Amino acid sequence: MEVKDITNRDVDFAKWYTDVCKKADLVDYSSVKGSMIIRPLGYAIWEEIQKVLDRMFKETGHENVQMPMFIPESLLNIEKEHVEGFAPEVAWVTYGGKEKLEERMCVRPTSEVLFCDHYKKIINTYRDLPILYNQWCTIVRWEKTTRPFLRSREILWQEGHTMHATAEEAREETLRMFNVYKTFQEDYLALPVITGKKTEKEKFAGAEETYTLEAMMYNGYALQNGTSHYFGNHFAKAFGIKFTDKDNTQKTPYQTSWGVSTRMIGAIIMTHGDDHGLVLPPKIAPFKTIIIPIGDVSEKLEELKSSLKNNNITFKVDERDKTPGFKFAEAEVKGYPVRIELGKRDLENNLVTLVRRDTLEKIQVTFEDVVPKLNELLDIIQKDMFERAKTRRNSMIYDAKTYEELKTLATTKDGGFIKINWCGNVECENKIKDDFGIKSRCLIEDEAVTGACTVCGKEAKTRLYIGRQY
Amino acid sequence: MEVKDITNRDVDFAKWYTDVCKKADLVDYSSVKGSMIIRPLGYAIWEEIQKVLDRMFKETGHENVQMPMFIPESLLNIEKEHVEGFAPEVAWVTYGGKEKLEERMCVRPTSEVLFCDHYKKIINTYRDLPILYNQWCTIVRWEKTTRPFLRSREILWQEGHTMHATAEEAREETLRMFNVYKTFQEDYLALPVITGKKTEKEKFAGAEETYTLEAMMYNGYALQNGTSHYFGNHFAKAFGIKFTDKDNTQKTPYQTSWGVSTRMIGAIIMTHGDDHGLVLPPKIAPFKTIIIPIGDVSEKLEELKSSLKNNNITFKVDERDKTPGFKFAEAEVKGYPVRIELGKRDLENNLVTLVRRDTLEKIQVTFEDVVPKLNELLDIIQKDMFERAKTRRNSMIYDAKTYEELKTLATTKDGGFIKINWCGNVECENKIKDDFGIKSRCLIEDEAVTGACTVCGKEAKTRLYIGRQY
Repeated sequence: MEVKDITNRDVDFAKWYTDVCKKADLVDYSSVKGSMIIRPLGYAIWEEIQKVLDRMFKETGHENVQMPMFIPESLLNIEKEHVEGFAPEVAWVTYGGKEKLEERMCVRPTSEVLFCDHYKKIINTYRDLPILYNQWCTIVRWEKTTRPFLRSREILWQEGHTMHATAEEAREETLRMFNVYKTFQEDYLALPVITGKKTEKEKFAGAEETYTLEAMMYNGYALQNGTSHYFGNHFAKAFGIKFTDKDNTQKTPYQTSWGVSTRMIGAIIMTHGDDHGLVLPPKIAPFKTIIIPIGDVSEKLEELKSSLKNNNITFKVDERDKTPGFKFAEAEVKGYPVRIELGKRDLENNLVTLVRRDTLEKIQVTFEDVVPKLNELLDIIQKDMFERAKTRRNSMIYDAKTYEELKTLATTKDGGFIKINWCGNVECENKIKDDFGIKSRCLIEDEAVTGACTVCGKEAKTRLYIGRQY
Repeated sequence: MEVKDITNRDVDFAKWYTDVCKKADLVDYSSVKGSMIIRPLGYAIWEEIQKVLDRMFKETGHENVQMPMFIPESLLNIEKEHVEGFAPEVAWVTYGGKEKLEERMCVRPTSEVLFCDHYKKIINTYRDLPILYNQWCTIVRWEKTTRPFLRSREILWQEGHTMHATAEEAREETLRMFNVYKTFQEDYLALPVITGKKTEKEKFAGAEETYTLEAMMYNGYALQNGTSHYFGNHFAKAFGIKFTDKDNTQKTPYQTSWGVSTRMIGAIIMTHGDDHGLVLPPKIAPFKTIIIPIGDVSEKLEELKSSLKNNNITFKVDERDKTPGFKFAEAEVKGYPVRIELGKRDLENNLVTLVRRDTLEKIQVTFEDVVPKLNELLDIIQKDMFERAKTRRNSMIYDAKTYEELKTLATTKDGGFIKINWCGNVECENKIKDDFGIKSRCLIEDEAVTGACTVCGKEAKTRLYIGRQY
């Protein structure tokens, strides 16, 4: 493992990304076109993500279930907008063994229709509501071009699906889970996300409102990193889901769904990574530290290992027959938040060297101080990573008052988010896409609108983030 | 929920089983033929199973990964015995969106070939071995007739896949994980499993040896509840996997795989359940107890809840507007190991009633004694459930020295395991199947062989369990 194996991220960011994915042993390509193999470190990060999110979902009253993986074509066809959005990108199963199926089935691209089909059976009265379900599973979308974690034919994700007696409750749920995602991504993944409502054009197929979390990658490109949808009762009506309310009348319930995926691992890599490889936020790192023994230090190593265990700090030890330099580089590639260099000579003076992965700063402490200092460092690194990402992101948010300004920004800056005034008309949105290949990210809800639409010059109704995307 | 909704298990065991699955809200049927919906209680049991097993896998050095869900036909075809075993029962994807695929792909029925395809790339020298991987995922087998948890087109399971430098190490691993399963099923699921090697005829397609765990259900039928396979290097050779050993020569590594699935939930139901519904072993019950308040006991209820929380005892509270009788019955159907009746009148005398689910025995204790008594009961119930199942199982193990004896047993007993002497010849195995519809379960390794083969009368080489199966 040599640092020179990783492309410089300022020279070729796309190549840098795939280099890091491969060299950090996060993924491997497979003989199955469009599908990736998630290797132990990549999967361990996903397990950490699952552990925290699953706890947050359960704390907000959700239960896990498991729906079928297949959707018969007739079931997918029930909600019109939804099928139009997904039918072009599903995988169709047409044979079971040697027999041709009477009705073909797709592998779920998302499970709204499966949940609705179940809800129809289990919702009878207001007492059955709300229903707060979540599912951890794999979905399939038949993408033409794929990229590890970002765009893959198979996606590991969770999808929450809930049903409520009133529109108000469903809207609250949509925002509650949206905020759970925001808290999680900021506090655990150290990702400063831009959050807001999607435009009509960009919302989820079949949804009334879609809220999105938009993370900005190192190159200034946006990564849509999670969405929460309010469906109103479109699906419920299409599926004939009804309940008897307290007033003894039949009503149609209101619905939400919300999901995040292994794409978040891509966001971690492209937000925090550097030319040495992956940099993992301590709170989500499967192993908080790696010990690299130098020379015969077995006694102190055992002592340190028990001390870390007793303090519930997860760690790895690299005792392979390789040079320390090789091991340092590999520890950097794999993103351990702190590396502990346990050297024979240092130990003669009772010293140990800790190295921060985010800054590569070296800190010498006495052997007894390793654990307290490590705990302190892990906290600091987590905070610093978030602040650093936020500062960088803010430096790449621009403002365009006129179409000329927009044109200059769009043609001189490859990445970054641009704030514009918008009249709310889809033609203006389409024009930006046609002229510059830039799409809407989300509405800006906390800025007052003054002046004209940046595109057409008519009265602006809202502020809007636009930006290039993955 | 009325107990009378559940069929008597001695009258119609199959109907009793589906009644319990449905009434305990473990599963629901879906519009997707052959696939089931796993409802919150069913999935929570699976999560408990995953939590314990995953810890056991990690403690034995295994790492989790995620392979693709699809297998291109040419990849499935590489190992001959394997493809013959699985091709008749796979689901084929032939279209991606509107385009016909150049090569069709099946949804994985198991992932040996996918792991081998990956191993070929990542195994180079002896330093890369052993590779100890596990995967939690869903597999698909196109079954004609399905039954919740027992036989389904979609199966949630884990599959361990490991590679070793020597046959000896691979054999050790096969048995190590076999023993992990045995410990788990006995200690956590309270299932007294019969364990041993499968006959040549019954082993896994492509394996050299298959070890099986055979649980006996209430009706005496066997449920194959997990298997561990030693592959030798068949697959490795077929895939051209090689490593440079310490002596600098090229060698082919040795392989294992092992898996258990949601089928274990079926085994729990059919081993421990009764005419009142599900009975969950305390160690795997997602909620150890349910509190049923009777009258206004809100103060004591809050006290009890914090006390349970502080003692890490998971619980539910049933505060719905229903009669205590209704709630008792539902708590029984859903199998909570202990129900706590928190009644206003009892509390006036500082008393609380605990009810064991396994025996329905009522125990009155003082309010202060609830938690210690509950902890004691949970331990006792776990042990008693295992012992009760073992006693029952042992009472249904028969011995047939002659074909006449075998015939009498096979025709008078619908269930149960029969021990026979066996010459090792597949014709004798086939004859038993043809005459009585009974298959081999596994070899009996701890019994000395004396006398003639129960079927053909030639010299017996081994003792064998046979029995009807799910």
